[in-house]
Amino acid sequence: MNPLTIDDIRQAAIRLAGKIVTTPLLTSPQLDALTGTTTLVKAENLQRTGSFKIRGALNKIMSLDEQERRRGIVAFSSGNHGQAVAAAARQVGCPAVIVLPSTAPRIKVDNCHWWGADVVTYDPQTEDRETVGMTFVHDRGMTLVHPFDDPVVMAGQGTAGLEIVDQARAQGHRIDAVVVNCSGGGLASGVITAISDRYPRARLFLTEPEGGEKMARSLASGKPERNPPGTTTLLDALSGPNAGAAPLSVLKTRPVTCLSIRDADALHAMEVAFRLLKIVVEPGGAASLAAVLKHPEHFRDKTVAIVCSGGNVDPAVFGRALAAR
Amino acid sequence: MNPLTIDDIRQAAIRLAGKIVTTPLLTSPQLDALTGTTTLVKAENLQRTGSFKIRGALNKIMSLDEQERRRGIVAFSSGNHGQAVAAAARQVGCPAVIVLPSTAPRIKVDNCHWWGADVVTYDPQTEDRETVGMTFVHDRGMTLVHPFDDPVVMAGQGTAGLEIVDQARAQGHRIDAVVVNCSGGGLASGVITAISDRYPRARLFLTEPEGGEKMARSLASGKPERNPPGTTTLLDALSGPNAGAAPLSVLKTRPVTCLSIRDADALHAMEVAFRLLKIVVEPGGAASLAAVLKHPEHFRDKTVAIVCSGGNVDPAVFGRALAAR
Repeated sequence: MNPLTIDDIRQAAIRLAGKIVTTPLLTSPQLDALTGTTTLVKAENLQRTGSFKIRGALNKIMSLDEQERRRGIVAFSSGNHGQAVAAAARQVGCPAVIVLPSTAPRIKVDNCHWWGADVVTYDPQTEDRETVGMTFVHDRGMTLVHPFDDPVVMAGQGTAGLEIVDQARAQGHRIDAVVVNCSGGGLASGVITAISDRYPRARLFLTEPEGGEKMARSLASGKPERNPPGTTTLLDALSGPNAGAAPLSVLKTRPVTCLSIRDADALHAMEVAFRLLKIVVEPGGAASLAAVLKHPEHFRDKTVAIVCSGGNVDPAVFGRALAAR
Repeated sequence: MNPLTIDDIRQAAIRLAGKIVTTPLLTSPQLDALTGTTTLVKAENLQRTGSFKIRGALNKIMSLDEQERRRGIVAFSSGNHGQAVAAAARQVGCPAVIVLPSTAPRIKVDNCHWWGADVVTYDPQTEDRETVGMTFVHDRGMTLVHPFDDPVVMAGQGTAGLEIVDQARAQGHRIDAVVVNCSGGGLASGVITAISDRYPRARLFLTEPEGGEKMARSLASGKPERNPPGTTTLLDALSGPNAGAAPLSVLKTRPVTCLSIRDADALHAMEVAFRLLKIVVEPGGAASLAAVLKHPEHFRDKTVAIVCSGGNVDPAVFGRALAAR
């Protein structure tokens, strides 16, 4: 059974109305000339907390009852989800614990603290973030806000796709293809559901870090796969260890093409976004733009919607992107 | 007589509808905490060609008759206006000559070429851009699209102010103050006219590069003043030699406070915009944000609208901003 319907996403959009940023759908004639496409860039890096993640987090927290909110929420995250949960908890007014890897960029830790959440760190080489997070559920009765493997979270992320559909129409575009960055699959399953509802024949693409193609392997095997331990990538927002079962069950009902993105591809896309779009995108957030730049053969003469999913990047990494031209 | 009315701006908005980007009005809780304000950031760096300038240029070109368009247009510019005129000319389909200083950042020259315009360069130490530009008017019958000293151009720039008013209202904000970057005064006169129409008691601020406060001096003397020759600033978008007579006649009817911005202030504001807003802003474009960061005493507990007016910045300069934290 498909755990996510277009109505779930529409209800999330109603719940979130006025509480999140309607991020712009950007275009650039120079980018289109460079790629031979019409590329519509959903700038979720401009979302509150610098990534799309607050959509799902806020949808989840707003669906809790008064008593659940009082006990608080816990989240484990490579970073962006943690910040988003922290901000959403503050917006709704409930306590939050964020479980982060000790390797997370400092900006992501600082931001969780800024929003008033407690931060607990773990060693990603020896500990499992899910196990650490679940102790708060069992010991304190907190509610887990899962980063992706929850239909309520997936529906929240899908509201970005609804906005893309509305904004594309307002700008006079018809969407031929969509490319979404994929880690656990929350954003990908939500956005693809929303776009496919309006454009059933749109071609569907996911992007994953090279060497960490857990969703591609999950789609091949039919069950949620994990990345090999010790995989390293600059695309930290897409580097979570496992694909989600619920997102997989959505994605495997559709013809999805998976594209692998190298660090250098992401850095190049970040430089293009700096130069042509004037936005700050983090490596994982730039993967779908990197795919359009790297694989123009899939998109030539097409109108392709992509999601720049986050902008939380350390200055040193951004500097590498600027030097990469 | 005031050369610019709110109706001129409203007519420009109708003319430009669907032909320019409705840029977002961004907010950041972290920025607000840092400044003690509610700051509304009009992200005109996300405008087509990377600055607000296409608003005025397109309004001007669309007001020409068929014969005038066929003879073409000429513009002189420190850069952003040139690119905008080139893009607007291509959008409308008329020939364009852009006169640029030989010191303009390469990105600005390249972009004029990209849009299909002819580029003519001059030496800013020995030649006057206005004189060079006017030869095309006299010899070829081209129409000058002045960067600021033309009520039609000013009305176009003012549409950014109308959008601020509408977007602030939609977000539930009332504007107490506005800060606009000022060089010749086209943007400043247009935006201040639009904001003041809706908020007659809003406090009005201009920002200029330290050492190049031509509008502050013009407001003091009552006539358009020039910068001393040889003035250097990193805020190249605000470094034109003279204040406009028409903008001055608008600005001097209102109580305007002028704030001076140093290179280091602008670099700091660019870093803040990178970190908290996830946008790429050029030094001159960051002046109004720099003013809120540098002079919080003017804005404490106020809702202040600012314009990030452009994002065309060389990577090396952006790298300096990132290193400045």
